[in-house]
Amino acid sequence: MTKGEVTQLHLINVGASLFHLQGYKHTSLSQILNAAKVTKGSFYFHFEDKQAFGLAVLNQQIDWFKESSRLHLNNSDLSPLEKIETFYRSNVVFFQKNDFKYGCLLGNFSQEMSTLSTEFAHKIAMAFDEMVALVSDVICEGILMGEFNAIEDIDLFANFFINSWEGALVRMKSVKDESSLVNWFTMIKQLLFIT
Amino acid sequence: MTKGEVTQLHLINVGASLFHLQGYKHTSLSQILNAAKVTKGSFYFHFEDKQAFGLAVLNQQIDWFKESSRLHLNNSDLSPLEKIETFYRSNVVFFQKNDFKYGCLLGNFSQEMSTLSTEFAHKIAMAFDEMVALVSDVICEGILMGEFNAIEDIDLFANFFINSWEGALVRMKSVKDESSLVNWFTMIKQLLFIT
Repeated sequence: MTKGEVTQLHLINVGASLFHLQGYKHTSLSQILNAAKVTKGSFYFHFEDKQAFGLAVLNQQIDWFKESSRLHLNNSDLSPLEKIETFYRSNVVFFQKNDFKYGCLLGNFSQEMSTLSTEFAHKIAMAFDEMVALVSDVICEGILMGEFNAIEDIDLFANFFINSWEGALVRMKSVKDESSLVNWFTMIKQLLFIT
Repeated sequence: MTKGEVTQLHLINVGASLFHLQGYKHTSLSQILNAAKVTKGSFYFHFEDKQAFGLAVLNQQIDWFKESSRLHLNNSDLSPLEKIETFYRSNVVFFQKNDFKYGCLLGNFSQEMSTLSTEFAHKIAMAFDEMVALVSDVICEGILMGEFNAIEDIDLFANFFINSWEGALVRMKSVKDESSLVNWFTMIKQLLFIT
């Protein structure tokens, strides 16, 4: 990695953390520069403006989220149910470690940015679709292996899986504990084992 | 209504619409005053500061949401499934009419404000609990009447009902159509009729 790439990644990481906690709009450029200890000149060398920076943060978060989800949902050592369970448990651990202050950046951005920027909305919509595809594969595998009951419309189910997960995270942020996530996993298991 | 009460309600309505579209933090006080055509002096006569105003908007939205939900979920002319169906359909019509730009203000505030203000988080958490109680009653009635299958843990189900609804609204905001709401209703019906 070049020195420039290190600075760029550092800015993105600091931005992601601030956006996660405070939201995109509430985070000013000077706050990012202060937290990252980077000059304005250096920022504008790497990013055209705050929106371009926001898109870079969103892209990196989507990549990170897909990567960490694949780690569980594509792990061929696990059964389909175990894949879903480790996805769920690793997320609970992450949110617990951060006192339930973080939600899903994708969900946060969707709430905050979708009405303001078509580019953000489009990117978020695509990322959701990719998550749905990842879940569809696991469900499909589970049905074929006989671990899950036959689910008629896998696409319908996988979309509901992701949407209800996002909803559990919204609720989590006001309650500040894992109860809505536990609720989600209990219900998803019910859906997987009954038809 | 006194002239003062009319001004107060007008400010709250303008604030609710702006918060809904742009978020609480992104909406400045001067934007609210401009849109409402109200002076700063008049604003501060009615509200201590922006946070107090935000709480008033939140309270009014919670009351409005509970009232309009009760209209459907407590309508004794309808069967339990019809109650849920009219709740769902009236919401779809509302979001459609506004080009899917609005989400649930409760959900938006939960995402945006829960980490920043305990007072907001507490109020939002309580409002969610009240919605869950309202749904629980409908489920209970549906089971007793034999319209729904026996759901073992009604509280678990009612919480999931509300959380997954919030998630469908998050997804809706990035996709800008009703597909996630249709998905939600299809899955909820499946859950009500299978056990």
